[in-house]
Amino acid sequence: MKLARQLEKLGTETAFAVSAAAAAWGAKGNKIYPFHLGDINIATPGNIIEATEKAIADGYTGYCPGAGIPELRAAIARDVGGKRQLSYREDNVSIQPGGKPVIGKFLAAVMNPSEEVLYPNPGYPIYESQIEYQGGIAIPYGYIETDTGFDLDMDAIRNAINPNTRVLIYNNFQNPNGAQSSPEEMRQLANLAIEHDLWVLSDEAYFEIQYSGQAESIVSIAGMQERSVILYTCSKRFAMTGWRLGAAIGPQNVIDVINKLNTNIESCTTHFIQRGMVEAIEGDTSGPDAIIEELKKRRDSTVDCLNAIEGITIAAPDSTFYLFPNVSAIMDRKGFTNVNQLMNEALTETNVSFCTRNHFGRTVREEKDFYVRFAYSGIDVADIEEGMERLKNYFEK
Amino acid sequence: MKLARQLEKLGTETAFAVSAAAAAWGAKGNKIYPFHLGDINIATPGNIIEATEKAIADGYTGYCPGAGIPELRAAIARDVGGKRQLSYREDNVSIQPGGKPVIGKFLAAVMNPSEEVLYPNPGYPIYESQIEYQGGIAIPYGYIETDTGFDLDMDAIRNAINPNTRVLIYNNFQNPNGAQSSPEEMRQLANLAIEHDLWVLSDEAYFEIQYSGQAESIVSIAGMQERSVILYTCSKRFAMTGWRLGAAIGPQNVIDVINKLNTNIESCTTHFIQRGMVEAIEGDTSGPDAIIEELKKRRDSTVDCLNAIEGITIAAPDSTFYLFPNVSAIMDRKGFTNVNQLMNEALTETNVSFCTRNHFGRTVREEKDFYVRFAYSGIDVADIEEGMERLKNYFEK
Repeated sequence: MKLARQLEKLGTETAFAVSAAAAAWGAKGNKIYPFHLGDINIATPGNIIEATEKAIADGYTGYCPGAGIPELRAAIARDVGGKRQLSYREDNVSIQPGGKPVIGKFLAAVMNPSEEVLYPNPGYPIYESQIEYQGGIAIPYGYIETDTGFDLDMDAIRNAINPNTRVLIYNNFQNPNGAQSSPEEMRQLANLAIEHDLWVLSDEAYFEIQYSGQAESIVSIAGMQERSVILYTCSKRFAMTGWRLGAAIGPQNVIDVINKLNTNIESCTTHFIQRGMVEAIEGDTSGPDAIIEELKKRRDSTVDCLNAIEGITIAAPDSTFYLFPNVSAIMDRKGFTNVNQLMNEALTETNVSFCTRNHFGRTVREEKDFYVRFAYSGIDVADIEEGMERLKNYFEK
Repeated sequence: MKLARQLEKLGTETAFAVSAAAAAWGAKGNKIYPFHLGDINIATPGNIIEATEKAIADGYTGYCPGAGIPELRAAIARDVGGKRQLSYREDNVSIQPGGKPVIGKFLAAVMNPSEEVLYPNPGYPIYESQIEYQGGIAIPYGYIETDTGFDLDMDAIRNAINPNTRVLIYNNFQNPNGAQSSPEEMRQLANLAIEHDLWVLSDEAYFEIQYSGQAESIVSIAGMQERSVILYTCSKRFAMTGWRLGAAIGPQNVIDVINKLNTNIESCTTHFIQRGMVEAIEGDTSGPDAIIEELKKRRDSTVDCLNAIEGITIAAPDSTFYLFPNVSAIMDRKGFTNVNQLMNEALTETNVSFCTRNHFGRTVREEKDFYVRFAYSGIDVADIEEGMERLKNYFEK
């Protein structure tokens, strides 16, 4: 019995193999220092749990509209719009079982086969996978390392755009490198999108994971709202990764189509969780505030520890819970040519587990430097310090 | 900004318009008798809720494997296999956010563009929509009314099969007509699938909604397990429609692909609900037993009431919570030519809301008889009797 041919174009998240390797090494009695996970080891705030359990008790256990319950759509419209100085209504919001479903559904809504989609690489690997699986042409763009982090390779983006370019995927507050655009960079990118009449997926999964200042959205720039869909998720801000709740927010014609896809794909998103989420957004925010405070401590600790390693220099990003240090000096010292060698040996030598650049889209251009990704969302400060000390000893050896 | 061309092939569930019409009529102060819903107005059993809430308290709020948690995959493998005299292991089960996602993912796993898929019509409208949206050719087959219910139109199926036929979708315990195959009919269908080397989606959403005897699965017939994927859902048996939990069960190569689609589409299904579901399957079954008892009372009441209407004769199906009476005599009496006229007038004349044949796939062949669908899962016996009395007065007028 043969399977469908199109599956050859379907990618995956290879980072799961890192989790499996860490788990296997841990099962042998080793204490793992888990920096590979984008998951959060912090409890979901109690008021969200209470509101969800009340919704179950109140009988919100049957189907709800495929687009989501009106109260949550309206709450997200107000919250997302308010923080971006944009006006959104209930009809601009489609509730999803997580942020990730927005990627595939957005592409299904706006992309035709053989059209080109610009996407960040290194970046979240599902962009690449969904573009190609759905018959599009995935055109990667990269980042340029600076003293303060990473800038978009704007020349690469500009040069890649042609009449067949249909979509730009932009992940400000970037996974894996923590990059956040300056106002000027964001404006340049918006100008390109407007000039070439591109659809834009603005993946703002980490918009709320902001340690100083106020995050800005490219969608707030004049001319962008009508061409942009925002990927919104409850996973990170509220420590709700396993709850599976997110939303697509955009022009009503796209949202109507995404709602129709919901009806075809999963009927609706879990009913009572949506009611809990209204409380998350509109109720007491001390829970998410405490999550940010805790993550900030972890960021500072991880950054300090990394900078204490000879050969690593990294600035503290203001957003995300990822650090993407350049480890070229360590690679030189070790004589490695593939950064996964460093990852594999570090696990068995130090019990520290992390991902590498190789887990964030296939390498598509010559890259002279090597990078690894540390996520500090799933590990406490004490273990960060302990693990990083072990890593320092190994990296400097 | 243009949308994707392929969206022209995307269908939907038009039954949602019936819900909207009923809600609008209800909002005018009318007491609605809701027979249009496939939803369940019975509480989810308490032990499932308790186990789910314990899982939240225990911190199962982070990501879990895309394929589902091992305990639930194993529990479903044992339960589904045991009731079908089949051997399944954890690797044969992919957890899904509902039963519906199995339809799209199964087709994505086995169907190539321009291949033909046989599907029931009247039937669940998402079959037709997903086949065509994914580029297949949807070939409908129908049912023949008998004194005891509906038989598959086996000649139509036989004649439709050709070298380009790739997949057979079979919905025993059928929505909307409640049909259940005899052992002989099931064997004939299995023989065709085996002879022509077809993949089979066995939609067994209502396998557990059985009022007498033991349900049988076509997958139990020799030669079928290796070509079949079972659509399993927790929605109906456990009154969990809004929880969104189901599974695909089949050969490991297909399940592996479906797991990879999970990773690309939604990451994973809600973590703590999966733990609650282990309790649902392996714990106290007095809850689901009571649901079946209640549904049986409603079935008997609705069947009796329908048979009391002059011009309607219907046998009581042993499965599902749907009744699909032939209303041709009523249509004659009213002088209507479109069965939705009957539906619309019945709503405003009697406050009774129901779907019609038109909501279950487009009419694709000449049909001389008219049918409507009554769902009794969302209405209590007292309201069934009250609503049916009103309907009788109107239908006989």
